[in-house]
Amino acid sequence: MKTILNLLAAAMALTLAVPAQAQFAKPDDAIKYRKASFNVMATHFGRLGAMANGRLPYDAKAAADNAELVTTMSKLPWAAFGEGTDKGETRAKPEIWKESAKYKEAADKMQAEMAKLNVAAKVGNVEALKAAFGPAAASCKTCHDNFRKD
Amino acid sequence: MKTILNLLAAAMALTLAVPAQAQFAKPDDAIKYRKASFNVMATHFGRLGAMANGRLPYDAKAAADNAELVTTMSKLPWAAFGEGTDKGETRAKPEIWKESAKYKEAADKMQAEMAKLNVAAKVGNVEALKAAFGPAAASCKTCHDNFRKD
Repeated sequence: MKTILNLLAAAMALTLAVPAQAQFAKPDDAIKYRKASFNVMATHFGRLGAMANGRLPYDAKAAADNAELVTTMSKLPWAAFGEGTDKGETRAKPEIWKESAKYKEAADKMQAEMAKLNVAAKVGNVEALKAAFGPAAASCKTCHDNFRKD
Repeated sequence: MKTILNLLAAAMALTLAVPAQAQFAKPDDAIKYRKASFNVMATHFGRLGAMANGRLPYDAKAAADNAELVTTMSKLPWAAFGEGTDKGETRAKPEIWKESAKYKEAADKMQAEMAKLNVAAKVGNVEALKAAFGPAAASCKTCHDNFRKD
């Protein structure tokens, strides 16, 4: 049973790895795509922040919709940090590739926090949203501080 | 009953209308956002096209995932064509605002075709994907031909 699971895990890793390289025709396409997915994520994250911070009135439906989009978008940029995408119109620091385990950890943490935010946004009150928003924003900041040029 | 439905419809229209104006701090933010959402949509749409046209091997799971993303993204750009967003770093033609009913029709058509593509991509065979891909691509082209500068 354990062998089957190991084989399955290996097969899945292979399935995930191959398209990640083949998904973009040119490094520039990957750079544009990852910026685009971060932009869409940040826009909807900002709307949750405005509600969490009281700059916009709390709206349960809008909170749920924005959080769903944020969570969907949070999964996308990572496949676009492949070979050759360290140069060009990008603020990505070399540390992304030099310290890839640390980068992956930060990326995974962000996705986990966004998933929690998505659950919290669906509770239906602003307190739950506020409680989850801070740690989610902190997970963005960690990556920006360590892996993005000013 | 009819009155209640009318009131509900009016309330919903109001709910939808208010955030559409308030969603972006600056027209440039809206322009960046709509380009970003089109970029993410086009990237995933391109992967469906590669499978439909045989440039990539058909993969039922990848087709379903890409189509789901395309459908999600197809709903986003339209709120970002508000006042003041006709100028700046954009290829948007003035016709978008001059012929807004025609533009809305084309945008609605595109979203409807992407929803159909999403259903077709989940059938699990490449023939269904091929059949839905052509009309979906045509709905992109209609808008590009009429409402986007070269």
